This record gives sequence, structure tokens and C-alpha cells, in this order.
Amino acid sequence: MPDDRPRLVDIHSHIYPRWYIELLKERVEIPRVSGAAGDERFVIFPEEDAPASGGGRPMTDDYWSVDTKLAFMDRHGIDVTVLSLGNPWMEPFTPSESLAATRRLNSEFATLDERTRGRILGMGVLPAADISDAVSIVEEIAADSRIHGIVTGTHICGRALDDAALDPLWDALERTRIPLLIHPHHGSAMDELGGFGHALPVALGFPVETTVALTRLLFAGVLHRFPGLRLVGSHGGGTLPYLAGRLDAGWRSDAALADRMPTPPSDVVARLFLDAVLYHPRALHAAADLVGTGHLAFGTDHPFSIADPAANLESIRAAFDDQDAAQVLARTAVDLYQIERLAQAEPRGGSGTL
Amino acid sequence: MPDDRPRLVDIHSHIYPRWYIELLKERVEIPRVSGAAGDERFVIFPEEDAPASGGGRPMTDDYWSVDTKLAFMDRHGIDVTVLSLGNPWMEPFTPSESLAATRRLNSEFATLDERTRGRILGMGVLPAADISDAVSIVEEIAADSRIHGIVTGTHICGRALDDAALDPLWDALERTRIPLLIHPHHGSAMDELGGFGHALPVALGFPVETTVALTRLLFAGVLHRFPGLRLVGSHGGGTLPYLAGRLDAGWRSDAALADRMPTPPSDVVARLFLDAVLYHPRALHAAADLVGTGHLAFGTDHPFSIADPAANLESIRAAFDDQDAAQVLARTAVDLYQIERLAQAEPRGGSGTL
Repeated sequence: MPDDRPRLVDIHSHIYPRWYIELLKERVEIPRVSGAAGDERFVIFPEEDAPASGGGRPMTDDYWSVDTKLAFMDRHGIDVTVLSLGNPWMEPFTPSESLAATRRLNSEFATLDERTRGRILGMGVLPAADISDAVSIVEEIAADSRIHGIVTGTHICGRALDDAALDPLWDALERTRIPLLIHPHHGSAMDELGGFGHALPVALGFPVETTVALTRLLFAGVLHRFPGLRLVGSHGGGTLPYLAGRLDAGWRSDAALADRMPTPPSDVVARLFLDAVLYHPRALHAAADLVGTGHLAFGTDHPFSIADPAANLESIRAAFDDQDAAQVLARTAVDLYQIERLAQAEPRGGSGTL
Repeated sequence: MPDDRPRLVDIHSHIYPRWYIELLKERVEIPRVSGAAGDERFVIFPEEDAPASGGGRPMTDDYWSVDTKLAFMDRHGIDVTVLSLGNPWMEPFTPSESLAATRRLNSEFATLDERTRGRILGMGVLPAADISDAVSIVEEIAADSRIHGIVTGTHICGRALDDAALDPLWDALERTRIPLLIHPHHGSAMDELGGFGHALPVALGFPVETTVALTRLLFAGVLHRFPGLRLVGSHGGGTLPYLAGRLDAGWRSDAALADRMPTPPSDVVARLFLDAVLYHPRALHAAADLVGTGHLAFGTDHPFSIADPAANLESIRAAFDDQDAAQVLARTAVDLYQIERLAQAEPRGGSGTL
């Protein structure tokens, strides 16, 4: 029996529907899209918004074309992509717009599976205002087998991930077993990261934002109380694998913390999943040491990749033996997103924009 | 010939002269020392300054007694400690006070070597205002063989470490080969780290501050231009070993950065030294992979240790084979601070306060 399981699955890849880009173009404040058609730029950091900066990152059809995504996948040998809306998700929407826009986005991402014959699986988003609406959306996504996970920023409905008001959401996510990809957008420590273009916001601000979010969630005992959550930390969890020993020490140094989290973070941190968008075997080893290769999954961050995705693939092959590499490159994602059944589907072209 | 070289050297350990503590007690704003004698508390984070918090970390004579430091060293089998003033160093002083206070501190730390018969080696500090004064202090320290390095915060004379105005200082440090320990104080991303006592400022704010400082220095090409600098990153360089691959990717993603730094950060990052205050073999492996065990050195962070120093020692023994462990536990420090000659000295008691 031939082994026709996918060998390379990308769990960290983004796309924007054109209507969503048009809404970002109407905005004056960041996050926004500047420029006319053909010269659009994606502006999310304050420094990119300054006239001297060139005004943000040039947008190509990598940002909105499903066909371009499929061509990218073919170029890099990616069998299946679990595709999410990129930041800023629903944040720019008013509370009254947010729920309708969420449903519109989710219904469109739900079409990807069939349109690409299983090569691209769409993730959903959560609304930005009411937690009870977010819980309803989780239920709707759970009822729709065409949606394969949810992407969120480091705050949900405006709340940090340690906020007890999010407990109904964690309960719904745990019950429905839907994977939640936690992704940075604003950057942390941004006031200290100026002067080097977008390099420091992307290289440090993003992973620190993810680290802070996951640490707050850990220290609030969310993974103690909801052990079945399937949370995926972007960019290898930011810096969590390097700092996990220090987090334990910090937890032990303050006796009051035991009220919220009865055992140290290391006791539950391996319940997290991490993507392997790390670019170096050294970091991949640390990530695998923290959560195991069974919780580590390949990603490209396309179209925002800050390095050639082939280099990241190569670093995974260099970091691990064949079996562990195969786990990271595909099997973790296959299990997490339950995509085995799609392995034999054939791609087709002409899938258009979202 | 018996091997009488030191087997355990602590390069990250702090003490405060009593007169310096008295000056911190006169302050109203953080950083400050609150409480009466016998109930003094060290207050550096805004959240510690709130009445409900208990008002900062209780200060024992671990903070000022040389004898207590020696007893701590005996308890943990530490042969030699390279001892520095703790944060906030000269930051609270006015420009006019700063230079005189710097000289007073340095002359006092210079006495430690003889007072403890070589078991404790004092480091110096830099003044907080004028860079030309800081250069003069470097020259004075270079002329005094009793001072074995310099400790600084993540800003020098109010400037971030990428500031070109610091070039005369880098030149003096490179010429004199004096090791510079770069240590956090304010914490980064502090506005996102509330609600868990001092745990998150210490566990995340500190290492992120160090990471930002070292990254700015790298991206400004300081280690390209001054390759002989001996810079030591606190707490294992913050998060730098985990993020180094991402820093390279960030550098490559912005062509304009090549003007300031002609080759990627990975080309020079191994010129950094890191302390091994990391609490877990996973992080120690990543740090050693980045800079080599020849640039990694044991530390305790006493009296601020957030974990039992014995646990950190154990994690180093678990992470490395005997030869690499011996390198990290003593040899890197022996070479860096040129302390081999002191190995046969006998300790004596009654060394008093600083």
C-alpha cells in the first residue's frame, strides 16, 4: 500500500479576501492598506506609517490570490496548507460590524477545502467584541466540518488571555477540540524597537507579544483548568522554550501565584502546540525539548515570510532525524487538524481570489 | 601537581554598600528602598510600589554584608565571585553627583579582592551622565588591577546601546579589554506584565530588556566595528539564543540594514559572552550552541536569585559533559576575568559590609 499521506503541511500561512483589503484601505489609522491598486502597501507598525519609510510592505497577489498560494505550495512541495486570515483579523471592526464580518469571513474560508480539492483548509476567526458572540462562533465552526481551526490575536474580545471572562470561550474550545492559533499583531515593547525599519518589530516585537500572551495564560492557570485545549503558539511560541525554566523560577518566587496555578508552568506547558517558524536548528531543538515533536508543526508565514521558506524547511531537516522531521513536517498537523482523509485529493487551478 | 584552579566561579552576583542603600531610602520614586532598618524593602517595579503589594522585596544582609556573601559562597561551593553593584547603579544620581559617586563605588569595590583574599573580585560602574566621563572611568579602571570588569544597565549615559555617541566608550572598552556585564533594570513591555506580582517583570520583562539592548547593539554593527569587545549578556542573553535565527531573517528582510551592519547578526553574535543563569538544560543548550561553552559562565544572581542556585548548578551539570560543565562552571570566567592567579588564596572572615 503506497504511503499517500501528506509529507509537508503548512499550518502558518495567511490570505486576505479582497473585500477585507478594501476595508483596510478605507482606514486612516494603522492597521491599514495604503496606495492605489497595483501599489498597495500593508501598514501595521507606527514606523511604517511615516512617509520616509516607504509606507509599509508592498502587497502582491500573494496576499489575496488562492492560485498564487497554490503556486507557492507547489514551488515548496507543500501538500496541504491550513490557511488563516492574517492580522489584524476583526480588530478594526466596530462591535456592530464585527459579528457579521466574522460570519462572512468564516463562510468564505469554509469554501477553500472544496475549491482546492483539499489542498487548502480554511481556518475561522472570532468576533472582536462580545465573548458570548465568540462562544457562538465557536459552536458554529464546530458544526461546520469545512473549517479547520481558528486564528486569533493575543487578545480576544479586547481581553488578555489570562482574563477570567474568557473562561466560557476556553470551555467551548476545549469541548469542541478546535485548534486555536495564537498570533501576534501589535508587537510588544514597540517603543524600544524603532530605528531599524520593520526588522525589530518583526524579529522581537512579535515573538515577545506571543510570549507575554502565552505566559499570562499559563500563569492564570488556563491550561490547568482546561487541559484539553489545543492552543498553537505562533513563531515557535515566541521565546517561551528559552524562558520556560525562568518562568518556573518566577512562579516559585511568588507564593501568591499558587492560588491561580497550583503547579509550575512546566507542568502544563507541553500541552501547547508550537509552529516551527524558527529558522534555526538551535531554536527547533529547544521547542521540541519543551513540547515534543508531536506538538511541533511546520509553517511558512507566507506571504509574510521573513526568510525563504526553503531555509526553514532545511533547518528542520538539519535539526531532527528522519522520523522526527516527518512528524514536524506533516504528522503533527495531520493529527491536530484531522486532515488525513484529504491526502489523496488532486489540486486544480483557477481557484481565484477569496 | 594538584589542580588548584577554581572549580566554581560566580560572575553574576550583586551587593550594595550601606551608604548607597541609604541614598535609595531618601528617594520617593522608584527605584527606592522603603521601610525602617530591619524591615527594608527593595522597590524597583511600579507594581511593587503599590501599598497592597507589600511594598517590594524584603532586604536581608545578603544585600550588603560581605560576610554573608562569603557564607553564601561557602554554602554553594563557589570558589570565586566576580561581584557587582546591583541595579539601578548610577541611574538615580544627578549628573553632578554621578561621577563622584562612581569613583566612590569603584574605590570600594576595588578593596574586595584584598579584603577577601581573592575570593571576591569587585567590578566597577560607569557614571550616568557624560560619555566622556564614562570613558575616563574606563581608563581609571584599566589602570587599577583590583577592578575586574564593569556592570551597566541596558542604557549607558541615557543612551540605547546602538547610539553612535557611545563609540568612544566601545573603543575604550575594546582597547582595555575590560569585560562589560549588561544587565536589565527597568524591564521591557512592563505595561503588559501586571497582575502577577513581580513574577512576570522578573521572568519576562528583564530578559526582554536584555534581548532588546543586545539586538540594537548587534543591528547597529557595534560588534562588527569593535570585534574585541568583551560583552556579557545577563540571564543567558535574555532570549537571544532562541531568536538568533529570526534576527538573521529580520536583517535579511530589510536591505537598508546592510548599511549599518554589513553581514548578518549571526556572523558576530558568538563574540558575546552569556551568563548561564537559565535554570534549565534546554536553554543552556541553546546558549552554548549560539556562543559556545567558552563564552558561557555560571552565575547565581544572588541575592536576587529566583531559584535555588543549587538548581541552576544542577541544570548545568545535567546539560553538559564533564569537560563542558567545567568550562561553564569556572574556566570561562577564569579566562574572561583573568583570575587564575587567585585560586590558591584562603578565605578569611570578618570582611564586614561594603
